[in-house]
Amino acid sequence: MKMKIAVLSGDGIGPEVTKESVKVLEGIAEAFGHDFQFTEALVGAIAIDKTGNPLPEETLNLCKESDAVLFGAIGDPKYDNNPDAKVRPEQGLLKLRKELGLFANIRPITAYDSLLDKSPLKREIIQGTDMVIYRELTGGIYFGEKKLSEDGKVASDLCEYSQFEIERIAHLAFKTAQQRKRKVTLVDKANVLESSRLWRRVVTELAKQYPDIALDFLFVDNAAMQMILNPSQFDVILTENMFGDIISDEGSVIGGSIGLLASASVGSGTALFEPIHGSYPQAAGKNIANPIASILSAAMLLEQFSLHDEARLINKAVEILLNENIGTIDLNKENPSSTSEIGDVIVKLI
Amino acid sequence: MKMKIAVLSGDGIGPEVTKESVKVLEGIAEAFGHDFQFTEALVGAIAIDKTGNPLPEETLNLCKESDAVLFGAIGDPKYDNNPDAKVRPEQGLLKLRKELGLFANIRPITAYDSLLDKSPLKREIIQGTDMVIYRELTGGIYFGEKKLSEDGKVASDLCEYSQFEIERIAHLAFKTAQQRKRKVTLVDKANVLESSRLWRRVVTELAKQYPDIALDFLFVDNAAMQMILNPSQFDVILTENMFGDIISDEGSVIGGSIGLLASASVGSGTALFEPIHGSYPQAAGKNIANPIASILSAAMLLEQFSLHDEARLINKAVEILLNENIGTIDLNKENPSSTSEIGDVIVKLI
Ligand SMILES: CC(C)[C@H](C(=O)O)[C@@H](O)C(=O)O
Ligand SMILES: CC(C)[C@H](C(=O)O)[C@@H](O)C(=O)O
Repeated sequence: MKMKIAVLSGDGIGPEVTKESVKVLEGIAEAFGHDFQFTEALVGAIAIDKTGNPLPEETLNLCKESDAVLFGAIGDPKYDNNPDAKVRPEQGLLKLRKELGLFANIRPITAYDSLLDKSPLKREIIQGTDMVIYRELTGGIYFGEKKLSEDGKVASDLCEYSQFEIERIAHLAFKTAQQRKRKVTLVDKANVLESSRLWRRVVTELAKQYPDIALDFLFVDNAAMQMILNPSQFDVILTENMFGDIISDEGSVIGGSIGLLASASVGSGTALFEPIHGSYPQAAGKNIANPIASILSAAMLLEQFSLHDEARLINKAVEILLNENIGTIDLNKENPSSTSEIGDVIVKLI
Repeated sequence: MKMKIAVLSGDGIGPEVTKESVKVLEGIAEAFGHDFQFTEALVGAIAIDKTGNPLPEETLNLCKESDAVLFGAIGDPKYDNNPDAKVRPEQGLLKLRKELGLFANIRPITAYDSLLDKSPLKREIIQGTDMVIYRELTGGIYFGEKKLSEDGKVASDLCEYSQFEIERIAHLAFKTAQQRKRKVTLVDKANVLESSRLWRRVVTELAKQYPDIALDFLFVDNAAMQMILNPSQFDVILTENMFGDIISDEGSVIGGSIGLLASASVGSGTALFEPIHGSYPQAAGKNIANPIASILSAAMLLEQFSLHDEARLINKAVEILLNENIGTIDLNKENPSSTSEIGDVIVKLI
């Protein structure tokens, strides 16, 4: 198979971890006789530094022409504590999501057996957890109109959703549930928000097309509790952009390391694959960051193109590593491997 | 001391648990020679059933004339799954918050030593947790303009904040931090939301008046992780309405039982005291619900009127109960006490 992959490694630890997933994809290409072409481009704080734009035209064009985007991380503390910055790294990612039409962010959360004891949660709580979160990614309060009054004393953000936006991601979530445990949980705040009531109405109606799927509802505050009290109750979680941001990051603690969690963003254009950890600037340049989330994102990329055997091989290799307690410092304090060593071992296993 | 207390026990387990906290307050009144007058009034689903209005005029007037409101719970499943209901129980609570000017919801979260093993989190994670969340309660997306298009296909909610709304609660949070560990953490999403950038700007400016307080910032998605990874890092958390709803319910799992968590809502009018658990309809009428959250809310009420000894006595009694493993079924599966037994024991200890 021939595939053009845009590599946007971005800020912080992004470049280090993405380098490893490219290495792994190259290993796969060699083993299976595929032709993967990688092209790098700028995004985020580093793109602002070099071009003044967090998503240069060139980068966007490359992504649109590519079959897939392998994304690193975005964000730099120098912007976070400056509410007056006019240009910010995150704008690059948000614009990319919008331009590529990536309306669904898919985040699987599993508790690996070998890591049960690394979780802040008790073993008996997390055992058997295997869920996937479908977060809407191009609507809601992220993209609604933003206002700041002339005198700078009043600010607002609009959270808006249309039936169309809800339906297209809901279909994906229900179809995925059909391949899994046949349960969809809609997370919203329908007791307060008009937009959440629309979600509930639309999803309830659409569920009639999927009579084999059980649909239930949770208010987001309750969901934030259930995620910790009883995470194994979930199969597919479906939710809007902001709630999905919070709930999925919360869920990322279950598995014992955020350094393991991958995501895929899909929609109408080129799909994007990204570890869910952020740019983690404290670790940048030290060759200590965990590249597994990025490597598993590469596996999700292969999966997206129905390269199931290839994806399975990567997943398998990661499991072997975890079982043998080979890991970066977040997983193995006594005898940590470096970022690049982890990539090397996985390539070797392939 | 003479005090007029409005009792709004509401829905589900509200009436049962509130009955116990009234009992306890009566015990305190007797022991200390206070004169507490209790007047009951309707709110929530039960008020809709009886009057068509989730917050009848009479109830609102009573609250305005009272020195404090003791609140039970609100909500009924028959409204939750009906996005088309025009009148909903929650409107009663939201209107009450607005009418009484209750702009700050205060939720302490502590890990009781005797309950460390009941938490879904590991003992070493939660040990030493002692934080208080200041959640803005009368602004943001809860109260911004709500719209539904004529054809019912587009819905929106506006999240708006003004400098004034942010400052008044921020002052409370910083003043509380001065009595505690001198740290305020602002939780927002300033990398995406204009309203969050206003929060960051206003709070940063206001912090200059409190040079003895350390101020830091967390994006809400990261906060949702930190709450579980390392809850003891927090002292005072300050945040807007929606994020506060999610983060504080998430935090409620730390202590091992949501049945222990109290809250106070304060502002420009009569203050309101409320357990943070909801109406929990499955348990209603069974005399099994944990009344301690309501009883501790009564202690917060006393605290608010500087009745420190009285409040301390209740807190002490609760600790004794927990140490002796006397509890409702959520805390003691083998040998559970009933709701009313717990109230009785606490009264006796007083
Ligand atoms: C960087 C930020 C804008 C982004 C988001 O909030 O969507 C990130 O937190 C994520 O979840 O991918
Ligand atoms: C009942 C509901 C409207 C309310 C809220 O979201 O504020 C509740 O969850 C709370 O936290 O007090």
